[in-house]
Amino acid sequence: MAPLSVAVVGLGSMGLGIAASLVRAGHAVAGFDVSPEAGARLAEAGGRAAASAAAAAAGADALVVVVVNAAQTADVLFGTGAAAAAMRPGGVILSCATMAPKDAVELAGRAGAAGLAYLDAPISGGAVKAAAGALTVMASGAPQAFAAARPVLDAIAATVYELGDKAGVGASFKIVNQLLAGVHIAAACEAITLARRLDLDIAKVYEVITASAGNSWMFENRIPHVLEGDYSPRSAVDIFTKDLGIVADIGREAKFPMPVAATALQLFLMTSAAGMGRDDDASVARLIARVTGLDLPGAPAAPES
Amino acid sequence: MAPLSVAVVGLGSMGLGIAASLVRAGHAVAGFDVSPEAGARLAEAGGRAAASAAAAAAGADALVVVVVNAAQTADVLFGTGAAAAAMRPGGVILSCATMAPKDAVELAGRAGAAGLAYLDAPISGGAVKAAAGALTVMASGAPQAFAAARPVLDAIAATVYELGDKAGVGASFKIVNQLLAGVHIAAACEAITLARRLDLDIAKVYEVITASAGNSWMFENRIPHVLEGDYSPRSAVDIFTKDLGIVADIGREAKFPMPVAATALQLFLMTSAAGMGRDDDASVARLIARVTGLDLPGAPAAPES
Repeated sequence: MAPLSVAVVGLGSMGLGIAASLVRAGHAVAGFDVSPEAGARLAEAGGRAAASAAAAAAGADALVVVVVNAAQTADVLFGTGAAAAAMRPGGVILSCATMAPKDAVELAGRAGAAGLAYLDAPISGGAVKAAAGALTVMASGAPQAFAAARPVLDAIAATVYELGDKAGVGASFKIVNQLLAGVHIAAACEAITLARRLDLDIAKVYEVITASAGNSWMFENRIPHVLEGDYSPRSAVDIFTKDLGIVADIGREAKFPMPVAATALQLFLMTSAAGMGRDDDASVARLIARVTGLDLPGAPAAPES
Repeated sequence: MAPLSVAVVGLGSMGLGIAASLVRAGHAVAGFDVSPEAGARLAEAGGRAAASAAAAAAGADALVVVVVNAAQTADVLFGTGAAAAAMRPGGVILSCATMAPKDAVELAGRAGAAGLAYLDAPISGGAVKAAAGALTVMASGAPQAFAAARPVLDAIAATVYELGDKAGVGASFKIVNQLLAGVHIAAACEAITLARRLDLDIAKVYEVITASAGNSWMFENRIPHVLEGDYSPRSAVDIFTKDLGIVADIGREAKFPMPVAATALQLFLMTSAAGMGRDDDASVARLIARVTGLDLPGAPAAPES
């Protein structure tokens, strides 16, 4: 397959990993991020750092948008970024941000009106899998969008779920996943701090729970951060204030109550309000420890004042 | 090792499985349950159905108590059941009910005063593993309690966690597990009903989520009940009104807030209040569907009136 000209806008850890994977697959990659440092890292990985989203997307066959939410995606494509108009006519947009299904539908409509294909393509897997080209993509869109995006998907993903022929389905699957992921992190943090409060050996709790019916992917993945007292962000608290916020928005709009998800959101908001929004999402455990006067590794009950 | 005389009090699906496993291992097993039918099933499995807890425990080397909670356990041992006083002096009690750690400590103290060893031995794994002699036991107690209980543990469990030399530690581990298990069931039910509300193919949601970061042991185990519309109780809603109730009691007593667990408890209470307390715990999904007017398999939006 002939190499494509691919633009990546948004060069956080996920976007950079995607860009590097595309370079490795032989594609010509240009990228843009509001942070100039991110551009420098892209250049190290063999991509071209452009001065704007439009400059990155100029003539591109495919544009991967890896920003935070629907508003930023819209701004990159059709607002100040003006990236959609810069692409090769008939090119394909892969929209990776977690967003409400209706926003994905709207963006797909605007892309179609601009003569572009649109793949609703939220991603999962974290920075390590992004760097390895081994993401999971929960994708939906027209068959021609899938066809046009295929070389990009092949380069960045280990698993591509093809979930339907309309934008919005991929977004919906991602939202359901994020509801569970967010609740499971909050529950893991409640459970491990309760264990500490009950004077249990929390490393032993990790061993027992990960082999028991109380286990979750998130418990297994995040609790080691608590055991090590390492809250450097692999995934930040404010990812979940955002994603559980989208869940809450959907719930209000659809008159669909989700009390457990709503409560988990409150814990992430408390943790963010306490100054840990950019720290690892396992910081919910630090918040609980701080409130309740518990010692945890790296989170003493009585911090220096 | 010489066969023991073992009594099992409480012959629900867990207790019957334990009794059958003990019979298979060559022990002499007597059992008692308030339900005469359970006694008949014990006899089929090769055990002796006794007319009372004391009659089952008469002269026993070991007594396995598999009832619902601390109050029932105390009643079996020291109350109307009078089983402790009937045992061989120096015998061992294995207490399997989920209970607050302080209740396990108190029961162990009373057993010691009566000249008996006591193993705090909550179990996990469900009816199928109980029948197979493949339970997980989260055990704590004095070394002599472990030693005396060893032939019983060998017969009933695939995994025995030895968690400490005092009663209460096993109970604490089980409570932490139940907090997570209960929250994960409630979250699974919120997520799968949200997926239905978003018009997703919920069988596909199951496939994608079980391979994604939103997975939990409970999502994977319980959501098939929702997909099949089969709410016959593998584990009942009221197990979790009870166990998350214990979590809530501990939280109030210790002044330890657990908002996510508290919210999950409310969902189980609502489901029980709506008449589904003895149905499968995945019935939380039916409750949400009923409240929100969703169709689910086996749970139509508009039931016949």
